[in-house]
Amino acid sequence: MDTRLLDAQPTPLATVAFASDHAGVDLKAHLYSLVQGWGYPVLDLGPEPGQSVDYPDYADKLAGALKTGPATLGVLICGSGIGISIAANRHAHIRAALVSDTLSAQLAREHNNANVIALGARLIGPDLAADAVKRFLATGFDGGERHARRVAKLG
Amino acid sequence: MDTRLLDAQPTPLATVAFASDHAGVDLKAHLYSLVQGWGYPVLDLGPEPGQSVDYPDYADKLAGALKTGPATLGVLICGSGIGISIAANRHAHIRAALVSDTLSAQLAREHNNANVIALGARLIGPDLAADAVKRFLATGFDGGERHARRVAKLG
Repeated sequence: MDTRLLDAQPTPLATVAFASDHAGVDLKAHLYSLVQGWGYPVLDLGPEPGQSVDYPDYADKLAGALKTGPATLGVLICGSGIGISIAANRHAHIRAALVSDTLSAQLAREHNNANVIALGARLIGPDLAADAVKRFLATGFDGGERHARRVAKLG
Repeated sequence: MDTRLLDAQPTPLATVAFASDHAGVDLKAHLYSLVQGWGYPVLDLGPEPGQSVDYPDYADKLAGALKTGPATLGVLICGSGIGISIAANRHAHIRAALVSDTLSAQLAREHNNANVIALGARLIGPDLAADAVKRFLATGFDGGERHARRVAKLG
């Protein structure tokens, strides 16, 4: 009997942190519920609905959460996704990919080892956003030498 | 006679710098020719076709060119646009917007005062890319207090 099989545990799923600005709160709530339903530990860093906030503050919050853990992946949302992705990428330990399609979400993990997916709530619909997030979470870093060398230069 | 009208000069067009990785050289050449044809002073920072390069190096080159001038706006291209946009946003004076549509290109200028448009050569077609770049170059920063406050937090 191979006891390794008995002892084998499923790989624990990454803890996923969520943050947005006011334009992104509804999409954040939608994606948070879905990702939680898929079995991932989740963390909502705000804001609450009804607040008007500045996207750089919430990008910084999420960057802080990924620094301290336990969250290792993040979802950031603003109106276009542009401002919050720029703000997130000011942090050397964040590789935030602004995506508007599922393939980009996959390539962001495979080639760039992205740890944050950024979305524009006014531009992407909720189902496509969910599909992109699902693919992002399900894809690992390709780890090839060329990609690793380029990612190292982002550090 | 109102001499102000006689003295009025057209606003000089921004100098636009271009850089890419190997996956982006063809789209770079296409957009460079178009933007030059629209009357903008242009600057090609490479690479030449046939080289294999690392996208962070060319993001850094473009960031350097926007720091020293005369270029004040930039176009960056890699396979997905993700890696080169992350690399560009490591620089505090760069606000690089990865876009896959024309409205995003406009919002990037209006709301985020983006000075770089990033494109994914494997994901966006040449005509849509051209339309996005045209809109990006033609749009100014909205300058409203909320937007300015948020952009200042990216600095």
